[in-house]
Amino acid sequence: MPEEMKPESVLLHDLDSAAETDMLCIFGTGDLGRSLGLRLLQSGYRVVYGSRRPHSCGPLPPGAQVMNHVAAARSSSLIFICVHREHYGFLETLAPHLEEKVLVDLSNNLKKDVYPEANATYLQRLVPKATVVKGFNTLSAWALQNGLLAGKQVFLCGNSAEAKRAAADVATKLGLTVLDKGSLSAAREIEDFPLRLFPEWRLPLCVAVGLTAFFFFYLLIRDVIYAYVEQEKDISYRIMISLANKVFPIVSLIMLSLCYLPGVIAAFLQLYRGTKYKRFPDWLDRWMLCRKQMGLVALGFAFLHAIYTFVIPIRYSVRHKLISRVVDEMKENKTTPFYFDNTEAWGTDSFYVLGITGFFLYVLLALTSLPSVGGSLSWREFTFIQSKLGHLTLFICTAHGYVYGWNKFLKLSTYKWYTPPGYMLCLIVPSVVLVLKLLLLLPCVDRTLTRIRQGWERNQSKETVGDNKATNL
Amino acid sequence: MPEEMKPESVLLHDLDSAAETDMLCIFGTGDLGRSLGLRLLQSGYRVVYGSRRPHSCGPLPPGAQVMNHVAAARSSSLIFICVHREHYGFLETLAPHLEEKVLVDLSNNLKKDVYPEANATYLQRLVPKATVVKGFNTLSAWALQNGLLAGKQVFLCGNSAEAKRAAADVATKLGLTVLDKGSLSAAREIEDFPLRLFPEWRLPLCVAVGLTAFFFFYLLIRDVIYAYVEQEKDISYRIMISLANKVFPIVSLIMLSLCYLPGVIAAFLQLYRGTKYKRFPDWLDRWMLCRKQMGLVALGFAFLHAIYTFVIPIRYSVRHKLISRVVDEMKENKTTPFYFDNTEAWGTDSFYVLGITGFFLYVLLALTSLPSVGGSLSWREFTFIQSKLGHLTLFICTAHGYVYGWNKFLKLSTYKWYTPPGYMLCLIVPSVVLVLKLLLLLPCVDRTLTRIRQGWERNQSKETVGDNKATNL
Amino acid sequence: MPEEMKPESVLLHDLDSAAETDMLCIFGTGDLGRSLGLRLLQSGYRVVYGSRRPHSCGPLPPGAQVMNHVAAARSSSLIFICVHREHYGFLETLAPHLEEKVLVDLSNNLKKDVYPEANATYLQRLVPKATVVKGFNTLSAWALQNGLLAGKQVFLCGNSAEAKRAAADVATKLGLTVLDKGSLSAAREIEDFPLRLFPEWRLPLCVAVGLTAFFFFYLLIRDVIYAYVEQEKDISYRIMISLANKVFPIVSLIMLSLCYLPGVIAAFLQLYRGTKYKRFPDWLDRWMLCRKQMGLVALGFAFLHAIYTFVIPIRYSVRHKLISRVVDEMKENKTTPFYFDNTEAWGTDSFYVLGITGFFLYVLLALTSLPSVGGSLSWREFTFIQSKLGHLTLFICTAHGYVYGWNKFLKLSTYKWYTPPGYMLCLIVPSVVLVLKLLLLLPCVDRTLTRIRQGWERNQSKETVGDNKATNL
Repeated sequence: MPEEMKPESVLLHDLDSAAETDMLCIFGTGDLGRSLGLRLLQSGYRVVYGSRRPHSCGPLPPGAQVMNHVAAARSSSLIFICVHREHYGFLETLAPHLEEKVLVDLSNNLKKDVYPEANATYLQRLVPKATVVKGFNTLSAWALQNGLLAGKQVFLCGNSAEAKRAAADVATKLGLTVLDKGSLSAAREIEDFPLRLFPEWRLPLCVAVGLTAFFFFYLLIRDVIYAYVEQEKDISYRIMISLANKVFPIVSLIMLSLCYLPGVIAAFLQLYRGTKYKRFPDWLDRWMLCRKQMGLVALGFAFLHAIYTFVIPIRYSVRHKLISRVVDEMKENKTTPFYFDNTEAWGTDSFYVLGITGFFLYVLLALTSLPSVGGSLSWREFTFIQSKLGHLTLFICTAHGYVYGWNKFLKLSTYKWYTPPGYMLCLIVPSVVLVLKLLLLLPCVDRTLTRIRQGWERNQSKETVGDNKATNL
Repeated sequence: MPEEMKPESVLLHDLDSAAETDMLCIFGTGDLGRSLGLRLLQSGYRVVYGSRRPHSCGPLPPGAQVMNHVAAARSSSLIFICVHREHYGFLETLAPHLEEKVLVDLSNNLKKDVYPEANATYLQRLVPKATVVKGFNTLSAWALQNGLLAGKQVFLCGNSAEAKRAAADVATKLGLTVLDKGSLSAAREIEDFPLRLFPEWRLPLCVAVGLTAFFFFYLLIRDVIYAYVEQEKDISYRIMISLANKVFPIVSLIMLSLCYLPGVIAAFLQLYRGTKYKRFPDWLDRWMLCRKQMGLVALGFAFLHAIYTFVIPIRYSVRHKLISRVVDEMKENKTTPFYFDNTEAWGTDSFYVLGITGFFLYVLLALTSLPSVGGSLSWREFTFIQSKLGHLTLFICTAHGYVYGWNKFLKLSTYKWYTPPGYMLCLIVPSVVLVLKLLLLLPCVDRTLTRIRQGWERNQSKETVGDNKATNL
Repeated sequence: MPEEMKPESVLLHDLDSAAETDMLCIFGTGDLGRSLGLRLLQSGYRVVYGSRRPHSCGPLPPGAQVMNHVAAARSSSLIFICVHREHYGFLETLAPHLEEKVLVDLSNNLKKDVYPEANATYLQRLVPKATVVKGFNTLSAWALQNGLLAGKQVFLCGNSAEAKRAAADVATKLGLTVLDKGSLSAAREIEDFPLRLFPEWRLPLCVAVGLTAFFFFYLLIRDVIYAYVEQEKDISYRIMISLANKVFPIVSLIMLSLCYLPGVIAAFLQLYRGTKYKRFPDWLDRWMLCRKQMGLVALGFAFLHAIYTFVIPIRYSVRHKLISRVVDEMKENKTTPFYFDNTEAWGTDSFYVLGITGFFLYVLLALTSLPSVGGSLSWREFTFIQSKLGHLTLFICTAHGYVYGWNKFLKLSTYKWYTPPGYMLCLIVPSVVLVLKLLLLLPCVDRTLTRIRQGWERNQSKETVGDNKATNL
């Protein structure tokens, strides 16, 4: 009989002993402190709050204890500090009771660079004999309260590996994934994280704004002002749609090609250096890291271009032009203009088809860059989509541009005031990227590049490092 | 030599001892029972099935044992009950063998409110000396079988914290995230979960249907019936597209403003009460919880509006009107109508540009509400998108509405049968929301509100609670 | 005092003892080996690298040790093999030192079927006394380095359950989810996984290409070649857009109906067999597994159809036709053609409205098939969307097709060269699916089917299996 009782007693005993050790302490009974406590209790920890006024600190999650700071600190080796940095003072007076404790600093600031040192560094200075770990600060009280933690990532940093591991164990139990950012000197970076505002979008958006402004004024001069000066016609109404609908595709195409330019440059750099083990220059690294955002901004412009194109036929000016053209024709009793130009029909239709196909591929590329879609692709599939399909998209969109101007390149009237039209300017970068990419696809170049990317080095000492690298995954 | 063997032996021994304790029992060999057993085996547990006929219960996952219920129950302290509630009877007769066991009830019902008490409560009544935990019931056999558990959430509830922890440990090993719903009284809620059908979409859809119906009949009377009665023209063909294309943008704009109205009301309520620590009235809470769905329904209508607009020029009636207008003009030999109205061109083009921009921002808002995209944003980024960009979208779409009627507000002919046209009605709510939001942005109001949201209270007792709250995160 | 020190000492001691056992060994210092080591160190393991030249193997993650292979192997019971298969030779000579070790083989090949046996099987043959586990090979060095592991799935296979569990424990600590693929014979499948290129998209894409090609040539003959032969008109310019815009909706509708056909066939098969416990034929299984992809390809074609339709009015040939029609009318001084046909207006508008609604529902279906959206739906919600809404979409799109030809079915001129037009052909499959689905919805059929799907069997032996199954979940 005692033999048979054993299995279950083992498991239950296991629970009991766990309950003994897993006492966690939280300093601070604000929104974050309370939500964190609730979640810890739900994950099976016991929780004790440290408070200045244990008897009047408002509603706490059921099951949690409240004590004064000293008693609370004594009951656990891990203390979560959910207090504003401005009020850390009391921790200094508590310092003797915090010796050898792990203090997890969850604080955030409202703005960057308000204080000369990170909150966690400041805390470590106040309580030098405790071990401070910075982390968990990217969680919001709201997400904690609603249990939306599955798969979320938290950062940790600290000088003690053991202290970090204790904090990481708690995070893992909460269903979080931990990313170790190294020593406590990374605290500033971690504290700045919740304050960041689309840092990786900044460069692409700047490029987009710059290109848009340049081409807007360039086309404004060539189209509207030229017409006003030379032909004394006021066509300013065209600014809203016609002009915008020229600027958008131009910016979109250039930005799409800027997605693929750094990859091509990197490949040539690797070919020139004969190794992949040298770091790229900083500007290239930064450029490569924002390619996805660059492409999504390009898609935004392409999307606007598509919608602007769809509304063309319902515009007042377009309808007016259509009607007045018919009426004019009738009045002058011409019969010739109604000759149907087969080449023109083929040309414009090809132009539209290339545009539609390009837009379709654009959307496909954007869909696979959604985190949940991209995450379900194998590495080979992702590469296939982003590289092969990406370059195809660039090729088709560039062709879309060439077909637009196919019969205008050699006409003199195209070059108003000796300036080339916008679509010619915008074809330069994509054409360069495509030609360079084509060079890279030549069998001999491609073979060398593949070998370099598999770890081969041109100038390696015959025996040591290179050999090692070619062996290992 | 024995010194060197140590490290590896520690790890392997660890495995052995784990294998001893981690025996789990499953009652029921149906689809769910079998899939669960397969998954548990893959996660390293040993599995024993309890069955009435251990020798004829069909194919089970390889590695699992089958016994009669009594023997199976004896071998593990944790038993998964994968049996329909209708057949719980046999558990009552087993009760003596289930004492002190943890019974995890996975059952679901086919409909809501069939039984007076939750399945788990019923089970607890049948076997009072066991500890019942309700949970895992949101998993489908299909997801279990295909290992699609990563990051999924399961609910647990039960009266014993230890029993819940034992069940939660198993869930964590399976790669699931656990959300504790409290005591066994929450079992009903957990059992209803798999039966819910878009509960958070109900209110937005009701509002949408109500608004659509109202504006449809309102415009039907003003447009079609008015024309029939007063001018004896049959323009019923307009119902399909022209009328719908008036109703859609109206409903879309109103629903978008209804997304932002509760936030504004909440802010004024907080200002009036001088604290954020009082609960909002229930209706406001419910309203705020379905803002996302409200916005997505609004986008749906905006999407329909966009497509309806794009097909305008290919409609038979529109082409007919265009042609007959030209022909009429020619016959009467007028020359004046072909005067190009620059203001009209600017007006309609601005109207289209505002609409396109608004739609573009709409889509952007919707994209960030995708779980995988929103989850990758920091709190500040999410707030920026949903609040700043959201109000901008509302502003632009409202402007789109104003520009539509810019020259019609003062014309008497606009007010057929003394009723205002639909677009005027739909501008009321958005205008109110925008004006209120503007008031909130005034520096003095904004400052007070920010302080309140950081925990400050106007009528606080100087010393205790408020001070505490301002200190803590 | 010693009483009070206890809680914290327990936790810290726990860390120390863990640190003693959790030593892991990595053979290979390439990109993958280094990234894996970095991640393991971050998760709290101690890492030792085995290298042929411990003193010149390049930069390793800080905190890791490097030794020669023998010493490294001795220090851990679990060894990650991050070496190309081509260089496994040295492991054979190491075999005596690898006895009873768990070797986790992470290697991938560059192409399928290069070697007669899987890398892991080859490794097991070289080192027969070690226990080989295949796995982790779907991780890229890039994902490891950037900590993008949350919620990712890795496959494991191996002949020893204990060895697999040791590897699985490491994976769990890294935040990965483990899917056990069984014995080492599954290694080939796991090694082929990173090389797969959209296997589940192959069948849908083949069907799409086949249908597109067939209908393209069919319509080319009926439209362009017929006009050239019979009427001696060159309307080849229509190929680019008009013809494509007929092919796309046809293929889209057929593929949408092919999404729902296998479900209907399966239901009839279950009705015929009277049980759900017999496996479907292989072709049906394969078909059902690619329904989602089938539907997404159908949406792609519908999307193209929509955009092709939107650009119609800005095409040169359409404008030309419009203008020349007006001019022709005027010249011949007709007055009758401008009669407004109310039926025609209703017909075309209904046609457009059905198309728009169908497209809208299409997009809705596609959105819920996004992993992150679908994952947040309950089983009942997912079924509601994919089945109810899916069949509604099919019904509306089919109606769209019928309305297109509503007044042409009985005209003889429709059947050029005695062939039916494309849209008639494309209505066959959807109509069949809808009729069959309607049959399944008949109360008597539906009741039987529901019972079968709940486990009831028509020809069951009264007492044993069936009863069992009806009892269990």
